[in-house]
Amino acid sequence: MSSAPRPSVPASASASAAASAPAPAPFTADDYRARMDRAVRSAAEAGLDGVLVAPGPDLVHLTGYHPPADTERLTLLVLSVEHDPVLVVPTLEAPDAEQAAGAAALTLRDWTDGKDPYAVTAPLLDSNGRFAVSDNTWAMHLLALQQALPSTSYVSLTAALPMLRAVKDPAELARLEAAGAAADATYEEILRVRFSGRRETEVAAELAHLLTQFGHEQVDFTVVGSGPNGANPHHEAGERVIERGDTVVLDFGGLKHGYGSDTSRTVHVGDGPSAEEQRVHDVVREAQQAAFEAVRPGIACQDVDRVARAVITEAGYGDRFIHRTGHGIGVTTHEPPYMIEGERQPLVPGMCFSIEPGIYLPGRFGVRIEDIVTVTQDGGRRLNTTAREMAVVG
Amino acid sequence: MSSAPRPSVPASASASAAASAPAPAPFTADDYRARMDRAVRSAAEAGLDGVLVAPGPDLVHLTGYHPPADTERLTLLVLSVEHDPVLVVPTLEAPDAEQAAGAAALTLRDWTDGKDPYAVTAPLLDSNGRFAVSDNTWAMHLLALQQALPSTSYVSLTAALPMLRAVKDPAELARLEAAGAAADATYEEILRVRFSGRRETEVAAELAHLLTQFGHEQVDFTVVGSGPNGANPHHEAGERVIERGDTVVLDFGGLKHGYGSDTSRTVHVGDGPSAEEQRVHDVVREAQQAAFEAVRPGIACQDVDRVARAVITEAGYGDRFIHRTGHGIGVTTHEPPYMIEGERQPLVPGMCFSIEPGIYLPGRFGVRIEDIVTVTQDGGRRLNTTAREMAVVG
Repeated sequence: MSSAPRPSVPASASASAAASAPAPAPFTADDYRARMDRAVRSAAEAGLDGVLVAPGPDLVHLTGYHPPADTERLTLLVLSVEHDPVLVVPTLEAPDAEQAAGAAALTLRDWTDGKDPYAVTAPLLDSNGRFAVSDNTWAMHLLALQQALPSTSYVSLTAALPMLRAVKDPAELARLEAAGAAADATYEEILRVRFSGRRETEVAAELAHLLTQFGHEQVDFTVVGSGPNGANPHHEAGERVIERGDTVVLDFGGLKHGYGSDTSRTVHVGDGPSAEEQRVHDVVREAQQAAFEAVRPGIACQDVDRVARAVITEAGYGDRFIHRTGHGIGVTTHEPPYMIEGERQPLVPGMCFSIEPGIYLPGRFGVRIEDIVTVTQDGGRRLNTTAREMAVVG
Repeated sequence: MSSAPRPSVPASASASAAASAPAPAPFTADDYRARMDRAVRSAAEAGLDGVLVAPGPDLVHLTGYHPPADTERLTLLVLSVEHDPVLVVPTLEAPDAEQAAGAAALTLRDWTDGKDPYAVTAPLLDSNGRFAVSDNTWAMHLLALQQALPSTSYVSLTAALPMLRAVKDPAELARLEAAGAAADATYEEILRVRFSGRRETEVAAELAHLLTQFGHEQVDFTVVGSGPNGANPHHEAGERVIERGDTVVLDFGGLKHGYGSDTSRTVHVGDGPSAEEQRVHDVVREAQQAAFEAVRPGIACQDVDRVARAVITEAGYGDRFIHRTGHGIGVTTHEPPYMIEGERQPLVPGMCFSIEPGIYLPGRFGVRIEDIVTVTQDGGRRLNTTAREMAVVG
């Protein structure tokens, strides 16, 4: 196979498929209306009077609207059992909001610079109501509502309605599958490029280029953690020159057709891993496989974490697995539910999340293996399907 | 002069100066310690027990720390009259926090995935205290603190301490001047490129390239609003092909050495503006000049808005000036204080903000002229100094 560093034409069959798949039909105002209706019903079942949603992934999910910038100017979706959905929006941004895919399912209520946006919002709320508010709503807005309506109370949206975005419908699942296939094609192509003698940032740029080439409209992260940098799970990519003999953690993803990809593989540069590197990789791969096999409806999120952690602890590396096992994925690459000790939320068919155990040996190297997995009626299904064995690269 | 579309070597003298100026000395831990001390003193004077700061511009200003990602994992600076500054940080991100320029002035208190970050934070707060909380803190964190410490109370940081970042010290002012000079050099160069027959996005890409060439590490926006697109003040840049005869609003900026630039000019493509285009431009230029001349210590922010608005209203375009006159600038390109009706905050020497009146004629064209201005002991000084007359481009 070619070793051209930046292939302009994907060579592998799966790569071609990932690049040429047709775009899915866009979500319609009816789709968004159904999502908002469901949110209101869920809120009522949870004893809430409504849901308040600021710009961010919840607003994208519920309305298709992504404001031009996240500023101190209040934009707030008000979902209430008492009235149809209203989007409070700055007048300046109303033309953008009117273009959102879900706009036809919304009433826009705009406010002009210099006016009080909370005076526009307060009449939309039951003054004794209890509301879920999206996790990332700015505190200044919450404080202003608490002040304007002192008898209202609030709870964070994820805590109140953890299932709001967690279970994906078939159209969402198709998008996540397409994003996963594109990430897999990216991985297959990156195995063909040269690693040794190049900076991490150069390989990271290739990952970004490939994700885009395979249809991602947004690249969120391209981790290239070589040698000791791989031992810091938060390392992105730096100026270190990759050498023969390095173990390299690759972790990359972004959005394709509005839905996320996120996969990790750990590769070895040169002739092959040392016995210890191979052993650590085997342990992580076994942990990842065991956690995957544990996935089925009804088990708790924390059980997925426990299964992975047990394998790694059993092998003597428990204190080197320093993060949770996974996170949800959808309109973002990182969202609830979390596969973490203490998360008792049971798995439900249609949930999608990462399983990504790792072992990190400070100053030496790290290993992480990650697939996105969806819960099926009787188990789990991987949305990333590239080989999990440690690949050797040049 | 050359009409090369992408000059690789800046030609003008100011451009050369902007590109070659040496980098300023970085802020030290002592600088950050002084800022945090001042914040605590200001809080005490305002009757508060402390200040809580989530990731964002306030955290950058106070500590130099910019976390790798803004997630649901709690990162929170706790400034209190009772103890030295503490940064609560996820264990995974502690290595990043330790690298922050202000780290030596902080105690890091890390918490591990699966633990309760609020249990780490609560003991740092007076359980009956009243705290300022940074505007963009996630609501989920505020709600958790309100629940953990039911007798605490909170107010948004900008409302409580509007002067925290509003007045720039000489080192900050020097950075804002350098960013302004780089934006001015960008404008001078963009006048030399071809507009007619090219898409807005192409000219926008040139603006981004020039800002980077002149030392910006981050480009925040590159508005190119041609013809009718200029009449939407929130338009960025689109696929419209610019034609001879178009009026084009340019509005661009970003960060250089961590501080912001933001300038707007309106140009005409071809042989020169029509009488009406010239008149609208004259009105906006007069409004911008009048507002600039009104700047002096002691007048209220809203007075700057009123002066600009009066000129435009007098000329019969009052209902076409559909946004506030300006916003502060510092470690972001858009922050308090706002030059807006209702903002009674008096101007103070060292404040920096935009003055950017505009007139927008829907379906036809728009005009906006914007400079960053700093308040001096006896007036104002522009940080953007390019000609404000309507330039004619090719």
